[in-house]
This record gives sequence, structure tokens and C-alpha cells, in this order.
Amino acid sequence: MLTIRRIAIDTHPENTAFLLRQSNGYSAEQFQALRKIRVSGENAEILATLALVDEPAMLKPEEIGLGEQAFRRLGLPEGAPVAVEQAIPPASLEFVRRKIDGDTLRDEEIIAIIRDISAYRYSPMEIGAFLVACASFMSTQETLAVTRAMADVGNRLDWKAPLVVDKHCIGGIPGNRTSMIVVPIVAAHGLIMPKTSSRAITSPSGTADTMEVLANVDLSEAAMRAVVDREKAVLAWGGRMNLSPADDVLISVERPLRIDTFDQMVASILSKKLSAGSTHLVLDIPVGPTAKVRTQDDAVRLRKLFEHVADKIGLVIDIVITDGSQPVGRGVGPVLEARDVMAVLRNDADAPADLRDHALFLAGRVLDFDPALRGGRGYARAMELLASGEALAAMERLIEAQGRQPARYTLGEHVHEVPAHHEGRVSTIDCHRIARIARLAGAPMDKGAGIELLHKVGAEVRKGQALYRIHAQSRTGLGFARDLAAEDSGYGIAR
Amino acid sequence: MLTIRRIAIDTHPENTAFLLRQSNGYSAEQFQALRKIRVSGENAEILATLALVDEPAMLKPEEIGLGEQAFRRLGLPEGAPVAVEQAIPPASLEFVRRKIDGDTLRDEEIIAIIRDISAYRYSPMEIGAFLVACASFMSTQETLAVTRAMADVGNRLDWKAPLVVDKHCIGGIPGNRTSMIVVPIVAAHGLIMPKTSSRAITSPSGTADTMEVLANVDLSEAAMRAVVDREKAVLAWGGRMNLSPADDVLISVERPLRIDTFDQMVASILSKKLSAGSTHLVLDIPVGPTAKVRTQDDAVRLRKLFEHVADKIGLVIDIVITDGSQPVGRGVGPVLEARDVMAVLRNDADAPADLRDHALFLAGRVLDFDPALRGGRGYARAMELLASGEALAAMERLIEAQGRQPARYTLGEHVHEVPAHHEGRVSTIDCHRIARIARLAGAPMDKGAGIELLHKVGAEVRKGQALYRIHAQSRTGLGFARDLAAEDSGYGIAR
Repeated sequence: MLTIRRIAIDTHPENTAFLLRQSNGYSAEQFQALRKIRVSGENAEILATLALVDEPAMLKPEEIGLGEQAFRRLGLPEGAPVAVEQAIPPASLEFVRRKIDGDTLRDEEIIAIIRDISAYRYSPMEIGAFLVACASFMSTQETLAVTRAMADVGNRLDWKAPLVVDKHCIGGIPGNRTSMIVVPIVAAHGLIMPKTSSRAITSPSGTADTMEVLANVDLSEAAMRAVVDREKAVLAWGGRMNLSPADDVLISVERPLRIDTFDQMVASILSKKLSAGSTHLVLDIPVGPTAKVRTQDDAVRLRKLFEHVADKIGLVIDIVITDGSQPVGRGVGPVLEARDVMAVLRNDADAPADLRDHALFLAGRVLDFDPALRGGRGYARAMELLASGEALAAMERLIEAQGRQPARYTLGEHVHEVPAHHEGRVSTIDCHRIARIARLAGAPMDKGAGIELLHKVGAEVRKGQALYRIHAQSRTGLGFARDLAAEDSGYGIAR
Repeated sequence: MLTIRRIAIDTHPENTAFLLRQSNGYSAEQFQALRKIRVSGENAEILATLALVDEPAMLKPEEIGLGEQAFRRLGLPEGAPVAVEQAIPPASLEFVRRKIDGDTLRDEEIIAIIRDISAYRYSPMEIGAFLVACASFMSTQETLAVTRAMADVGNRLDWKAPLVVDKHCIGGIPGNRTSMIVVPIVAAHGLIMPKTSSRAITSPSGTADTMEVLANVDLSEAAMRAVVDREKAVLAWGGRMNLSPADDVLISVERPLRIDTFDQMVASILSKKLSAGSTHLVLDIPVGPTAKVRTQDDAVRLRKLFEHVADKIGLVIDIVITDGSQPVGRGVGPVLEARDVMAVLRNDADAPADLRDHALFLAGRVLDFDPALRGGRGYARAMELLASGEALAAMERLIEAQGRQPARYTLGEHVHEVPAHHEGRVSTIDCHRIARIARLAGAPMDKGAGIELLHKVGAEVRKGQALYRIHAQSRTGLGFARDLAAEDSGYGIAR
């Protein structure tokens, strides 16, 4: 038995335990074999990666050090006795190996994997192996089982209402911040729309990142309920709710590996919606040559997979396939996108028309879920609520209820304009490229970083005229982004 | 610029860098995004995982801490100035992503991946993704490219001789320690056979682990050359030679994931042989229901892949498909196997006949590479050298030349006998199960741990009679092994 000592080292997201090398007599090789250990005390246990300490001042021989992450997850006080043994790998890894070998897994096998993943029993390497094996082939039944298992392991919000609407976009289109317009419209109408969003995974901004420019989005479940009770809606970050925690773990590996298969997408999105207590979902699938979904055929395949799984888990889904051929709106990056959103809500004359139209279309589809509305009236009702200023008022109330952002985020002061190489008509804008440039500029970490699109597809430009403006908060960020843009601006210009 | 401070924490095999949290103002989220950083100083750089330190006594704000592993790999002194920036993921990861998507990669793309892997630029997760993606499909050309690239990035031994023989078994059969008999026979004959072996990966013992019971196997390249100059042969651990370092990195991930595809096997084995300077190789593929290769068809497929790649890289290969239906010899685990090997070399009356026959067969095939021997005389010559005691004498000389093991390893004192549940004839022995039980008992870390098989296939046993004896050095190890054996002993007994 060893006693716990808290070590002020944060190795998030991994659990790390520290042992004095001398006291154990492990050779470097044995150490390597033992790398993952199981630390167990009264009613609690964790798996942790082992680091060996060579400095006796840091740790006594009878102590085991736990890094911040491990200490918090184990939840026992300093000095508490714990047993340490070689971690026996989770039994479900055997199923992962079978998946690697090309097998199709049964529901209970998938449940075991997802449970172990959400309990942090898998290493990132093992999670990566599972995801990549799934990327090569997954049956529809497996996708359904993963979705269910993911929704089952975490928290499940219950809004005690027969109609809880939601709206989601599969992403990939920079500047496509429609949720921040749809939610106030729907709230103004009076449907319940507790929208939890993620932060950006591979994009320059997620809804949570952009909303955070205006309001606090890091709400506890209780705080979120209070906002919904008052305003019918909320625009919160979902990370605090423990909704589908397996998804959060999977995403932490999908992000660096940039794994984005249809199966993972469906499981991730629908498990989150199920956990969030949504009953009716409008799902936006943008299609375009540089979007996540590139052809109409793929979109139909994805639509059917969403519909199949949604039907089986009892979620009403309305899927809309939209134009994803270029970025939406003018701004890409938290501050710039928030500016676009507010311009639309305020009915500013120069508000980006494409963002407005896209949001109204989606809001109309969400409102069409309302049994009290006459069929097909959703779109007109959405226009009414926006034009009358009721949507703007609802947004202001939401911001107040969530807590107005005390920090004043401003546009990054380091600016570079990317010029047209020759005269002509803008024929294409590469979503993927624009997103990468905006990320290199610093978005979403630097809220003021991003890209201001000065011309969209169809515009006539002169040689040397600025196509877009890169904003960065650091000189390094601007340099990275400028270099990438110089290599390829992402704009196609037809002569 | 920060200055280096060495931190006495060993996080092998990962590089870890430490920064004081306060001085940086990174939020937990930014920290997560920044997790991997690039530390660069004069003529040296490494990628490292970032850990945040909350204890000011450990680190000054202007310092960056480097764990033992990172400090050693960077190779700069304490106090040296270094720059720290967010690591830009290696460009070759883009190729890995394409591989995940099902693409076939070009040679130069594979070279880029293998280079980055051997330079420790990939995280275990990224390596796992590459391996699993390769496990789902690899073209023969890709396997060849991986083999070549792996051999090219490391050290390449040159023995300045036209004929450098080698012998290798793909593994999976417990107790199959033929190399330790083949090498002394071939050395006694006078061919050059510098055999580098690995330690156990997923098995209860590798040749290096077993040889270490008798002699030092951890030789520098110079020491190994000295032994070969004197004795024509060596039985050394290959880990110190920097042969195919990418293979070592890949294996560190293959091991926990238990990835063992044909393509990886061919690339791993042949790249190591090419690096080790072998010109002629006898390769043993045991086939059996619980071996790595289960059917004759698979064996032929594997044989052809080995032959194809060997031909292209200019290695003469002779592949033998052998009986892998049960463990070879009596002992499983380092001490027990060393005992079997020495019994065969000493021509003891009770030496395990199957180990002896198997080794003689393989030694004969290796000797058949000798142009000076009349065709087909290899086997008879091998028998001569063994029966005359010349092979034993060669082994004793090898042990002396490498350095006789000063530690006296003895059999584990904790013993448990596994009984037959009923009377009958032993019809099957599960190689995989026996290996797992021996590993749980502590092999190969505990040299004296393992399994002593008291009966092999064909033996008649009475109810309650001991089938095998488990040896362990710790009570815990014995307990684990006994529990697994109680669940299923691995023996099939026909009534």
C-alpha cells in the first residue's frame, strides 16, 4: 500500500502517476511494460500512465504521486492509502482488435467499448485504433449501437416537454453561424430550444466560441435550466453537461487525427442530441466541392444514415441539404462572426444576405415542428420575427440571462490583405483553405483572429484588389496565415 | 527564449516538457490545443508533450523543464536557450489521413511517414492510426516501400563478407528457441551468423530474453563485432544497434494493440534483416490452429509476400513452413527455455526431441547456403556438429565472448500444477493460451517464471494428473496465472 501525494503537474487529458524509481527497482524495460497502472483506494480507482521520479525530494518511497488530473479523477484525499498494480487492459480491447481484423461487432461489445472509453480506460492510442478501424468499415447496426451506447453512458437532460426542438449543422462551412440567429427566432416564437454547442474542433470557430464573444456560455446544468425556464432557449457550451462523455473523449482523438467519417458523425451528433433531451431536430447538410460532403450522392447516403439511426432512437429528424459551395456570411472567426450575426438580427442594411437567408430557411423548418402553426407557415413566421425585432430582443434577453460577456473582444490588430492575382470574376472559394488560414491566424483561441471576406462568389475583382483581410492578435499568427494564403489564397478567379 | 532545466522525471517512451502554468496564462483549453510543442535550440529540436506545473519551486517562469527522455533526446545542456512554439504536425500525417480514407500511398509518401516516425515526431496515437489503417489494406508495393524505408532510416551493419546467414521465426509458438541451437551449429561450421534478436513482444520470452539467462546480450555494435570476429557468430539483443529504429517505435505501439498483420510482419522482419547486414535468410513459418498462421493457404500467401519483398530488396530467402500445432520443447519462459536449449546442445538423453529436430532441420537449411557444402548435405552436417559436441563448444565460446551472465537466474519458487480434468489422450495444446498464462506468471520480466509442460500432444493422462507446472517469482503472478489456467488450461483431452 502506498499513500497519495498530490503533484502539482497537469497532464490533461491523461492521468499520470509518479513513483520514485529507486524504491521500486524497476529497470527501464520493466517500467515500460508496466507503463499503465491501476491505482485503487476506497471505492475509487483510475488507470494512469506511470512516470518515474529520480528526485527523492519530490516523492517518498512509500508515496505515489498523482498529477492534477489523476488526483481529481480518483477523488481521494492526500495521504489516503491506495494499492498499485499493473493495469489489466480493459477486456473490451479484444473487441477493438476484432474490429481491426475486419469483424462486425455485436451491440453488447460496442457498449463495453464505449463504457470503457467514457471511463477513461483507453489510452489515446487505443481510441485512435478503434476510430481508425471503424473508419474502414461500419455496419448501420454498429453505428446505431455506438450512438445508443454513447447517449446511455452520460447525463441525459429531461425538459419535461413533448416538443424540444434543436438545429444542427454538420459543419465544414466557415462563417456558417446560423444557430445564433435560429435560436432567438425560435425562442421569440415560444418553442423550447435548449441549444448546447461545441467549441471548434477543426474549424476556426464553433457556435460556443462565437457566442462567447457576447455572453457567458460556460453554464452549469442548473444555470442552463434557469435560462431555459425564463427564456425558453439557451445558447450554451455543452462541455459542462457531461452529455455523451464518450463523444468528448473520442473527439479529443478525432481532432488531431482529423477523422470525420459519416458513421462517427452520425453517432456523435445524434448521441449528443439524445442526451440533450431533444425530440425534434433540423439537420443541415451543406454540400459543395470543398465542404465535408462533396456530392449529392454522398449527401443522400448520409441523410439516410441519419434518418435510419434517428428513427431507431426515437428522434424526429428533418434533414435539409443546403448549398455549401462557399463560406457563409462575411466573417470567419469568433469576433467577426458575432458581428455578422448581430447585423442580421438588427436588420442592418449591409447584413450578409446569405447568412440571413440560410438562417431564416432553417428557422422556418424548426418552426414547422410547431403543431400550432399552419403547415408551411414556418418560413413566413421566421421572417416576421426577424423583421419585427422580436428575434433581436430575444437574443438580448438570452445574453442577459446567460451573463453578458464582461471581456470586450476586439478584432486582431495585425492585418494583412490578400490580393487578387488578376482581374476576373470570383468563381470558387475553398472552404477548407479559408478555415485553415483562419486557424493559423489564431482562431478560435484568439477570438479576434480570423478572416473578413470582402468578395464572394460572383463578384468582379480587379488585379491587386483585396479579396479578404486576415486579422490576427499575434505577429506570429499573422505570419503563418499570410504564408499559407500566399501559397494558395483559396480563391478561384475566372478571367 | 526559455532556458532548459532538467526535470528528474522519466516518461519513457514519450518526451515531456514542463512549463509553469502561471507564467503563460494559458487556459486549460488553450493548453490542450497546444499539447504538443516544438522545443528548438542550437542544431537540435524535439517535439514534446506539454505538462503544466503549478508549483513555483519546481520551475522558474523563464525556464522550460525537460523530462529525462526529452532532455536526452534534445542533447543540449541545462541552461541552454531554446525557443518553444506550437508543434506543427508533421506534414506526413496528411498521408496517414489519406491511408485512413483508403488510399494507396506512393513510395515517397511512405518514406516521409517512416522518417517522421523514426524521428519520434508521431504520437503513439498517430502511430496507432497509421498501423490500423495499414491493417485494413496494404498493397504489395506499399509493403515493399515500408520495408525499404524502415531499413534506410537506421544503422546498416556491413560485415564485409559475401555470405552473412540468418535465421528467423515469425513467432507465436511458445518454447520455440531454435536460434540458440542453430547459431552454435552454424558457428561451429564456420559461416558468419551475427544474430540479433528482439526481446519478447507479446510472447513469454524472446531469444534475447532466454539468451540473457546465460550471457550478456546487451552489446554495443563494437562489442558485437568483436564477438563475431572471434566466433563468427553472436546471439545479441538488437535493441542497441539502432537497426530499423522505426520498427522499434512501431513495435511499441503494435505491442499494446496486438497488431500482427502479414504486411507489418514482413516489413518488420525484412527491414531488420536488411539493416543487420544479412544476405541469406532461412525463415520459419509455423502453421497451426493456435499459431500466428492458422492455415496452409495463409502460410502460402505469407510466404509469397516474404519472397516478393525479399527479392526486391536483394535478400536471398529460404522459407520453411513447419508444424506449429503445439509448443516446442518442454519449457516456456527464459530460465526453462535456456534449460531445454542446453539439454539439446549437451545431447542429454532426456532433451526435448521436438526442439532438437526442429533446430536441426533449420540449421540444415542454413548450412545449405554454404556453396562449399555438397547440395542437400546441410542436415547431415548439422547432425554431425551437434552430436560431436562441437555445437556445444561453440555455444560455450559464444557465452564467454559475450560475457557469461553473472546473475544466477533460478526457477520461480511459487509453483502450481494444473491437473487433467479427466482421463484421455492430449489432443491439442493452445499456444496462445499457454503463452498468456506464462506471461501472467511473470515471464519474460521474471526470468524464472513460466510453464513446464509435462505432457505433449499424444500423451495419455489420468484424471488429476498434472499437465503442466506454472512457476512464478511472485505470489501475485502465480495467482493471475493459476486463475487463467483454471478458466481454461489450454489442453484438449480426448476421451
